[in-house]
Amino acid sequence: MSTERIFNFSAGPSMLPLPVLEEAAKEMTNYRGTGMSVMEMSHRGKAYLAIFEETKADLKKAMNIPDTHEILFMAGGATLQFSAIPMNLIGKTGKADYAVTGNFSTVAMKEAKRYGEINIACSSEDKNHSYIPEQKDIKISPDASYFHYCSNNTIYGTEWQYIPETGNIPLVCDMSSNILSYPLDVSKYGLIYGGVQKNMAPAGAAVVIINKELAGKEHPLTPKLMSYQVMIDSDSMQNTPPTYTIYMLGLVLKWLEKQGGVAAMEKLKKERSKYLYDVLDDSKMFIGHAEKAARSDMNVTFRTASEELDDKFIKEAKAAGFDTLKGHRATGGMRASIYNAMPVEGTKKLAEFMRDFEVKNI
Amino acid sequence: MSTERIFNFSAGPSMLPLPVLEEAAKEMTNYRGTGMSVMEMSHRGKAYLAIFEETKADLKKAMNIPDTHEILFMAGGATLQFSAIPMNLIGKTGKADYAVTGNFSTVAMKEAKRYGEINIACSSEDKNHSYIPEQKDIKISPDASYFHYCSNNTIYGTEWQYIPETGNIPLVCDMSSNILSYPLDVSKYGLIYGGVQKNMAPAGAAVVIINKELAGKEHPLTPKLMSYQVMIDSDSMQNTPPTYTIYMLGLVLKWLEKQGGVAAMEKLKKERSKYLYDVLDDSKMFIGHAEKAARSDMNVTFRTASEELDDKFIKEAKAAGFDTLKGHRATGGMRASIYNAMPVEGTKKLAEFMRDFEVKNI
Repeated sequence: MSTERIFNFSAGPSMLPLPVLEEAAKEMTNYRGTGMSVMEMSHRGKAYLAIFEETKADLKKAMNIPDTHEILFMAGGATLQFSAIPMNLIGKTGKADYAVTGNFSTVAMKEAKRYGEINIACSSEDKNHSYIPEQKDIKISPDASYFHYCSNNTIYGTEWQYIPETGNIPLVCDMSSNILSYPLDVSKYGLIYGGVQKNMAPAGAAVVIINKELAGKEHPLTPKLMSYQVMIDSDSMQNTPPTYTIYMLGLVLKWLEKQGGVAAMEKLKKERSKYLYDVLDDSKMFIGHAEKAARSDMNVTFRTASEELDDKFIKEAKAAGFDTLKGHRATGGMRASIYNAMPVEGTKKLAEFMRDFEVKNI
Repeated sequence: MSTERIFNFSAGPSMLPLPVLEEAAKEMTNYRGTGMSVMEMSHRGKAYLAIFEETKADLKKAMNIPDTHEILFMAGGATLQFSAIPMNLIGKTGKADYAVTGNFSTVAMKEAKRYGEINIACSSEDKNHSYIPEQKDIKISPDASYFHYCSNNTIYGTEWQYIPETGNIPLVCDMSSNILSYPLDVSKYGLIYGGVQKNMAPAGAAVVIINKELAGKEHPLTPKLMSYQVMIDSDSMQNTPPTYTIYMLGLVLKWLEKQGGVAAMEKLKKERSKYLYDVLDDSKMFIGHAEKAARSDMNVTFRTASEELDDKFIKEAKAAGFDTLKGHRATGGMRASIYNAMPVEGTKKLAEFMRDFEVKNI
């Protein structure tokens, strides 16, 4: 069955490692002799709790998460966190700083405005989010409760190449689209979060990694399930968690460890994206959206000089087995999303296809 | 593989129909020639949108949902709705009525108290929630924004046998544990909701069926993803929905239709529960928790006169292939949760096991 699979460049939900899907299929009706599917297990039962604890331990290990921080599995993806973050964290001063470098950081900023006073610490809007501001251009408010940024901008194909320096202001980062793709010093962050549907698992949950010191000061109207303190105290089991999504994350983490962990992922992501960026650098037809210094290894955005040619490219690419390459309407053109589960072969072949397309169409 | 499966009496997550699990396994790495898993599909792509629309249409058909009502797929299970309901609906008068007939209706009521003035319209707490109040004992407030009740109390094994009459006050009902198990006049309700992990799909979402007239009056601090109006306007696609959970619901709905729909489910649930209630009625050892008039067809709660004997029963039942029969600490004893996916054979055999156990241990 695997030979029929295609290269899927979707921005999320996106490719999952084939061995993970195969294992999930194999265990679907009977998980390791329990006589039931993981989907059917009580979340309070021994069999499921073992999966849950192991997944948490594997994530802690994969990201080298210090004991100061707690891992939470929460419902609703990153977007519900756009509300949870200010509801939980803005109370200290009523103010927060946001870096605006793309679509989701803008949405997060607008949602936060409903709960407090927001300072836009930096923005790349002037150049349609094609770059990442430098440290010297970030205006930190001394009385901000936290500083929020999005480490990889899926739609624009830019990625922060450094961790912003914010002094005593806790760093809050949306890592939805590049979490688990490189080694990271988690201790520098007050809170890291991400929707799972890009590098972690099927859609339907968010992972939150929070310095426990930040919890417990939520707005009185915060829905109980969105209180970080409630979730810490209940070990993400205040209600039935998205059990199967967490199981899938567990399988992905086992696969990731076998590949060599986040260090290997970083090597692979550089290798994977280089094939495509080399084409862009050599090309007289394809134009990259992101400035070179800000290029993302997860989302490669490009276009040709004409929409007709873009459409032709997308159509012919699809016929050749390269799916979901259409760019977001904010940039137009094409986008190749190439997360951890994308085989290097996928971008190598897409690069060949691009070079071939250029020769035939220029 | 199916022969090794056991009868799983978990209260939720719980059994799913075996043909559904088998189909999910078969389609896991390549959904109907798309070359990808449903888990990997962009939620905005043609292939996934077809699944989404069909699932919605099948639910509308299965429950005979009128056009006045909208179906929403939301994150977080029923518990997040405990907050969403008052945040969205209580604004009209600042007051709401709650029927307290078990654990989850109590939790829902307590959460609602954070957002407005709550009147307990009726309660079965005086007899450890072993009964359902009669219509004449419900005190409706004329200025309540809505009346909330839970149609089946999972922990106590009681089920409302009638739809409460509330005049002009909109009826809001948590149907997590008996949705899709009987024909229902949806038009009588302002809002019906349920976590999917009992009768619908694997855990990780809630289905909300709302009369559209009730939406659009949410508290200004309502998280965007919890606004019913936002979810109606975006057709549950304000962000990435729990795509795979919705796909699984779709498979369950196809299975349900093949069995004869909710009318057939009602016949089967009566047949299924009768095996167990007949044992309770005949027994000198087993004592039912719920009063006869309030007995649930979804959760059968019982105990013996001693905790030691309860433990012995649970242990021997497990060894015989009847899993997760331990009752909740609120009632003690045993609980057999027997949702739509439980084969009638499951309760027939459990009934035989109970009779046999009684003969041997009395």
